Amino acid sequence: MSFTLEGVAMPTLDLALPLHAHDHSHEHPHDHLLQAVLHTRARSVALVQGLSDADCTVQSMPDASPAKWHLAHTTWFFEEFILAPHLPGYRVFDPAFRYLFNSYYETVGPRHPRPQRGLLTRPPLEQILAFRAHVDAALQRLTREAAPASLLELGLHHEQQHQELLLTDLLHLFAQNPLHPAYCAMPGAAPGPMPAAQNPEPVRWVSFSGGLTDIGHADERFAFDNESPRHRVWLDDYALAQRPVCNADWLDFIADDGYATPALWLADGWRWVQEQNIRAPAYWQTHGDGFHTQTMSLHGLQPLLPQAPVTHISFYEADAYARWAGARLPTEFEWEAASRRQPLSSATPAQFADHPWRLPLPADDAATDGLQTFWGGVWEWTASAYLPYPGFHPAPGAVGEYNGKFMSGQMVLRGGSCATPPGHIRPTYRNFFYPHQRWQFTGLRLARA
Amino acid sequence: MSFTLEGVAMPTLDLALPLHAHDHSHEHPHDHLLQAVLHTRARSVALVQGLSDADCTVQSMPDASPAKWHLAHTTWFFEEFILAPHLPGYRVFDPAFRYLFNSYYETVGPRHPRPQRGLLTRPPLEQILAFRAHVDAALQRLTREAAPASLLELGLHHEQQHQELLLTDLLHLFAQNPLHPAYCAMPGAAPGPMPAAQNPEPVRWVSFSGGLTDIGHADERFAFDNESPRHRVWLDDYALAQRPVCNADWLDFIADDGYATPALWLADGWRWVQEQNIRAPAYWQTHGDGFHTQTMSLHGLQPLLPQAPVTHISFYEADAYARWAGARLPTEFEWEAASRRQPLSSATPAQFADHPWRLPLPADDAATDGLQTFWGGVWEWTASAYLPYPGFHPAPGAVGEYNGKFMSGQMVLRGGSCATPPGHIRPTYRNFFYPHQRWQFTGLRLARA
Amino acid sequence: MSFTLEGVAMPTLDLALPLHAHDHSHEHPHDHLLQAVLHTRARSVALVQGLSDADCTVQSMPDASPAKWHLAHTTWFFEEFILAPHLPGYRVFDPAFRYLFNSYYETVGPRHPRPQRGLLTRPPLEQILAFRAHVDAALQRLTREAAPASLLELGLHHEQQHQELLLTDLLHLFAQNPLHPAYCAMPGAAPGPMPAAQNPEPVRWVSFSGGLTDIGHADERFAFDNESPRHRVWLDDYALAQRPVCNADWLDFIADDGYATPALWLADGWRWVQEQNIRAPAYWQTHGDGFHTQTMSLHGLQPLLPQAPVTHISFYEADAYARWAGARLPTEFEWEAASRRQPLSSATPAQFADHPWRLPLPADDAATDGLQTFWGGVWEWTASAYLPYPGFHPAPGAVGEYNGKFMSGQMVLRGGSCATPPGHIRPTYRNFFYPHQRWQFTGLRLARA
Amino acid sequence: MSFTLEGVAMPTLDLALPLHAHDHSHEHPHDHLLQAVLHTRARSVALVQGLSDADCTVQSMPDASPAKWHLAHTTWFFEEFILAPHLPGYRVFDPAFRYLFNSYYETVGPRHPRPQRGLLTRPPLEQILAFRAHVDAALQRLTREAAPASLLELGLHHEQQHQELLLTDLLHLFAQNPLHPAYCAMPGAAPGPMPAAQNPEPVRWVSFSGGLTDIGHADERFAFDNESPRHRVWLDDYALAQRPVCNADWLDFIADDGYATPALWLADGWRWVQEQNIRAPAYWQTHGDGFHTQTMSLHGLQPLLPQAPVTHISFYEADAYARWAGARLPTEFEWEAASRRQPLSSATPAQFADHPWRLPLPADDAATDGLQTFWGGVWEWTASAYLPYPGFHPAPGAVGEYNGKFMSGQMVLRGGSCATPPGHIRPTYRNFFYPHQRWQFTGLRLARA
Repeated sequence: MSFTLEGVAMPTLDLALPLHAHDHSHEHPHDHLLQAVLHTRARSVALVQGLSDADCTVQSMPDASPAKWHLAHTTWFFEEFILAPHLPGYRVFDPAFRYLFNSYYETVGPRHPRPQRGLLTRPPLEQILAFRAHVDAALQRLTREAAPASLLELGLHHEQQHQELLLTDLLHLFAQNPLHPAYCAMPGAAPGPMPAAQNPEPVRWVSFSGGLTDIGHADERFAFDNESPRHRVWLDDYALAQRPVCNADWLDFIADDGYATPALWLADGWRWVQEQNIRAPAYWQTHGDGFHTQTMSLHGLQPLLPQAPVTHISFYEADAYARWAGARLPTEFEWEAASRRQPLSSATPAQFADHPWRLPLPADDAATDGLQTFWGGVWEWTASAYLPYPGFHPAPGAVGEYNGKFMSGQMVLRGGSCATPPGHIRPTYRNFFYPHQRWQFTGLRLARA
Repeated sequence: MSFTLEGVAMPTLDLALPLHAHDHSHEHPHDHLLQAVLHTRARSVALVQGLSDADCTVQSMPDASPAKWHLAHTTWFFEEFILAPHLPGYRVFDPAFRYLFNSYYETVGPRHPRPQRGLLTRPPLEQILAFRAHVDAALQRLTREAAPASLLELGLHHEQQHQELLLTDLLHLFAQNPLHPAYCAMPGAAPGPMPAAQNPEPVRWVSFSGGLTDIGHADERFAFDNESPRHRVWLDDYALAQRPVCNADWLDFIADDGYATPALWLADGWRWVQEQNIRAPAYWQTHGDGFHTQTMSLHGLQPLLPQAPVTHISFYEADAYARWAGARLPTEFEWEAASRRQPLSSATPAQFADHPWRLPLPADDAATDGLQTFWGGVWEWTASAYLPYPGFHPAPGAVGEYNGKFMSGQMVLRGGSCATPPGHIRPTYRNFFYPHQRWQFTGLRLARA
Repeated sequence: MSFTLEGVAMPTLDLALPLHAHDHSHEHPHDHLLQAVLHTRARSVALVQGLSDADCTVQSMPDASPAKWHLAHTTWFFEEFILAPHLPGYRVFDPAFRYLFNSYYETVGPRHPRPQRGLLTRPPLEQILAFRAHVDAALQRLTREAAPASLLELGLHHEQQHQELLLTDLLHLFAQNPLHPAYCAMPGAAPGPMPAAQNPEPVRWVSFSGGLTDIGHADERFAFDNESPRHRVWLDDYALAQRPVCNADWLDFIADDGYATPALWLADGWRWVQEQNIRAPAYWQTHGDGFHTQTMSLHGLQPLLPQAPVTHISFYEADAYARWAGARLPTEFEWEAASRRQPLSSATPAQFADHPWRLPLPADDAATDGLQTFWGGVWEWTASAYLPYPGFHPAPGAVGEYNGKFMSGQMVLRGGSCATPPGHIRPTYRNFFYPHQRWQFTGLRLARA
Repeated sequence: MSFTLEGVAMPTLDLALPLHAHDHSHEHPHDHLLQAVLHTRARSVALVQGLSDADCTVQSMPDASPAKWHLAHTTWFFEEFILAPHLPGYRVFDPAFRYLFNSYYETVGPRHPRPQRGLLTRPPLEQILAFRAHVDAALQRLTREAAPASLLELGLHHEQQHQELLLTDLLHLFAQNPLHPAYCAMPGAAPGPMPAAQNPEPVRWVSFSGGLTDIGHADERFAFDNESPRHRVWLDDYALAQRPVCNADWLDFIADDGYATPALWLADGWRWVQEQNIRAPAYWQTHGDGFHTQTMSLHGLQPLLPQAPVTHISFYEADAYARWAGARLPTEFEWEAASRRQPLSSATPAQFADHPWRLPLPADDAATDGLQTFWGGVWEWTASAYLPYPGFHPAPGAVGEYNGKFMSGQMVLRGGSCATPPGHIRPTYRNFFYPHQRWQFTGLRLARA
């Protein structure tokens, strides 16, 4: 069986390349880092091409933020933590933005309440873009000596994270609209045809040997604080499915009354299913001829592709499905250990740079182990709670309020999704969400002993 | 003591004149009515001049609606009830709008949920304006014979109601924004200076004789169904204060611990004060030098004017104040009976047409009875629950779902506010809101035996 | 057609007779009043015969109170307002009770939160009974000179009100219990057989002439402050149905999709029906053979009696039914005017004293006007909001917090129910509840022009 | 420094001895098991001596259950899973109890909603006790052959769990009562004097070596399914404090603004502190002379003992305190590994059998490692989320719905509390609660590398 990665032919867009995709053998590190930051920031602006001020202003639920807010908050991050303290003579763009665009940094000061982010019709989008230009220009004045490289790199990765959130938050907004608008970052571009429906491959199990394994970040490249310290974990032997669970599988789960069988569900999950009247993944809609879903595509609402990984499911759904299938979710440690044998290059094909999203389609990216769509298809829920690694310490100062304070109540996801920016995918990356949340591109891959 | 009505000098704006302000002795009624409808509709568009698509899209609370929604819903009203059934060959602008812009007409069909009106970033403002132009053009094709005059007139008054809501909903939105944007329907216009602070006049009582009184609508001019049937009510003798309660009075109430004295409050009101932590009218903010408030002005956040009528208070607050002052609220019947001696002309001065709002300032509009700021200053809470008049019947058909179905749990307000459109003020008009609501320009006038 | 009033034969119970039912021509007023108070208080204790400490402790919803609380609060009323200030040397039974058993008298001081009344497993029932005995003994020491007659009378009527609440709160509690326990104040008593099902009489209309009418309390007998001042109201001619709406009528309403037809409902009511998923009166349960209901009877859960007045309906339901029936609810003024021609004696038959409740059955109590079951069958919802009469002033002091502070958001009911104590029914009595509440014995009688 | 374990001298009570405390060398295992079951069940009844029917009926919050419900549900467990299927001719006591007293076994059938457990004033306590006697008698008829030993043992441990919940649920109920009733299982018993206040020992660190460690249940004695399978875990070296954090420590945390310093808190915890206005552990009350707390003692509300372990804290508070102290919480694996060197005998002194609770006082129970109050003082929050061990499978059938379905969102606690029944404490025991819950006797012990 053969898959195509790209799904839909997309017109070319000149977006920023990620840091480590560069050949920077002959560049000065500072210059290179600055270029990568500016490229990344240019990509953020490219993401809202074709969107209106209103599209970028509305907040469709408290978990989501307006696109305008993402654009401003990532810029505030550079202003607050880099430019104001480190660039002599830097003029703050607008003092009110310190209050408006702080996300959750208690040590920085009070901030606009999160659920009210969508009430800020002013400043308009164009003023936010002017704020971005002001900060970009100032960043270019940062000298090699003054520039705090680690903060610049953190700012770059922080902005990449928000790029993914910007896309998933927009998807949530558009999915609430009965008109089902299609997101398109490239005005006037004609999308190619949708891929044809195919039957998925049967599940095959790929085996991995256990033993004492080193887990966590261990090289000189960037990683968030929550990926460290590297530490030892004991693993028993295990196996992973060669592909994520796909839409065709999920239709079987629904047809077998999966959503109505309490024995399949965790108690919290069963309560959630009952209270929220959950009957299918988010964004699925029944039409006369079966389920449709709204994807982040030029095509808008479309029939389900049977072979595409199921997405927009909660941890509770992933866990119930695995139980129904007689399997389980992998731990984040099993996942990371397996990832060492999957060539990361498959996550950064040339076409990644071309468009801000792609259909999460199965691809012929089988590694030596034969694990397909391992990188950047869907975020895969794991069986692991999001907790500190042994010896974890957050970074000093305000930026320490980054990952550590969320270490309760959430579950780890691994792998990266179709909306994850190029260069933001790596084996040790720990994404985390509450078990009921499902507006990200979240799916699962089965595991067993 | 002398007051100026206009408050702030405003540049001239060519807004629609209301129906009955015209001299239409030599016009055909149909032509005249159609012109009045189109004038009114032009005024709606003028109200959003200078606002962005985003300003017109966001919904700041479930009680409020986006400006775009007001513009579209009033247009849908003409399309649904007049054009589609009565104009041969009329082409519906967009079939989806029937679902999107129905407000609460159960008999018309399902509709977009009210709390989600603010999620509709699409259709954009310009498409709503195209919808309006499409409907306006079609209205002009209505012949004398086909045109249902009573529905046209209802549509006109319906649109006027939404003009006021559009303004107060915008005020609520802007008041949530820490930047305190100023509403300005006239881009580039320079506002005049704010009026000087003055001490208010002491309260004087104006007496009215009781007896059997006819209440309700009784002439050929337009009125809503809830203003009929005209019926008899017995009134004892009573007196009204010559002016509304003003900000200076309210500061005394606050200083005397009015918000912390349970004996002054209705039980429901006391619970509301406690649960919502109410300490002042809506939009009041404490600064170093006292309260400021956001008015619907070019000036944005401004110090309180002592002589201006207090506004943005709930029925509970109005009732508590009256008890504190040793007085009471008038009934809607006392108010209407008194209104017969107040020249309505004072409500429609020339400058009313010039701007969509004005400061609710006391004016030298003393009628024969000496009641000041009686028309169109602030909506005055009455002691009357909003109930049907004896023999009330709603209009047949879908438009019957207009006023009758809201006849529980709400209180009547009388008089009209500074945001009420010209021509939409009359002695028998019954406005109604829930006792806790206060985002309208709501105030009070004291009564006593 | 003939009805029996009593419904079910009940064993005799020696309960207190109400004040005005006595022939007191040769007694001293003070002695008589004191006896009436003590008789009434003895009846309260009789009401909980056969109930356990647990039955009297639990609070089944925030609107309800435990029986123990009713017994203690009514006793606190005498201690706080009469004994402590007026009986020299009176010893407070337990100082903690002042906090525990104050209901809502803000001027008396802080109090135990209402929703937590059901957490007081201590003091036990027997200690509450000891508190009652302590207060009863002290009341007997009140001399003619010291005794504040008006407060004693208020305490008596206050206690009667709580007797009715005690019964309806117990009914609510027992109705939540899947075992459907039967309330029985007389342990060991064998209830008689249930009445046979009968078809109700068709509705007949009884006409009343309008005109200027005096409304409100006007004689020397006791009345609450909210029944005054007597004042004039204009009434148009009107007619009332000869009997309340009964269960058979209501089954027709249900069969005609009354609960699923939005045009029949007030907007608030329609939201309530949707949110609470209301499909029938409270306590109705579907069984294989139709609806059953839990009545306050020895019989427990029983099949509906077609001829019995429908009860446990909200104002919203009463209003929707009246609209469906092409009629309306009477105003409280129409009801009171009509009541003048209904012999009150029909409300106080001898058997009233015999049992704390009775089935609300239609009775052959037709007055000269032929209005049946007018007194004490079910509380009849009126179209009138609960508002102050012109010139209303609450009593001075803490007892002024009695009726006035609830004058918002509620609707008036008239007539008295099968759970209303003997002697607590009169033409000017104004009962009031929120429009969604239905745990009282609430029904309706149709009116029309 | 020297501590006394017992805290307060208590009169002797003949309570059941736990299973493994018996010398059963010469008994038949079935006889012995049956005796242990009956002894345990007798202890449940002893726990409610001195409590009223009302005390045993009320539910003070949805997380808690009435004592009567605990007594009935544990009995239902034996009837449903053992007697009905295994004892020929067994007569079900009351078929309605199957619905009333099922807790959460979805496979058994529908059940009374948890938040309404407190509305069941009927059946009364005495009927529940009759139900218990009926089941106890039937258990004694179980023959050696028919008796399912593993289910009997499960029923015994299930009942022990509910004994602890019964006590903590009662504590919660009594703590809501302004009268602060004291729990006393022994009517008429005079409690001894409260221990004297002492300064706590300074913290000392006890070191443990890491390495590959076997975790989980591994012998023939009873354990719940969630304690298996035994599996390997890698541990780094670590140290534990010799004693739990005590009240004196916590007062320092409060004095240092611990509850008002966001940097100390997890984001979820900080939100909880703000929304619930948390300023101290549960049941602490400020008096003129400092904090008091309600303990499960004969003494009622008492001043804090500085040397007693802090208790009734949430995981969020435990975590924040550890961060404030420059330490961390231990993982459940560190805790279990350390426990192997703590003599379990210290958890079952003779006096454990004497009373259903004891003050959680520090005791001179230093093991070879010098860890004090390790067993049965307070449940110690760990840093571990409650998740399945590798290879976990719940038991087949309905009893499989025991521990597995709660494996999300909760944190593990280890050690047992002063309310844990004798014999219910073991090294591999995993208790679990949501991070905000604190009505159990929950505390913490610090850890560090």
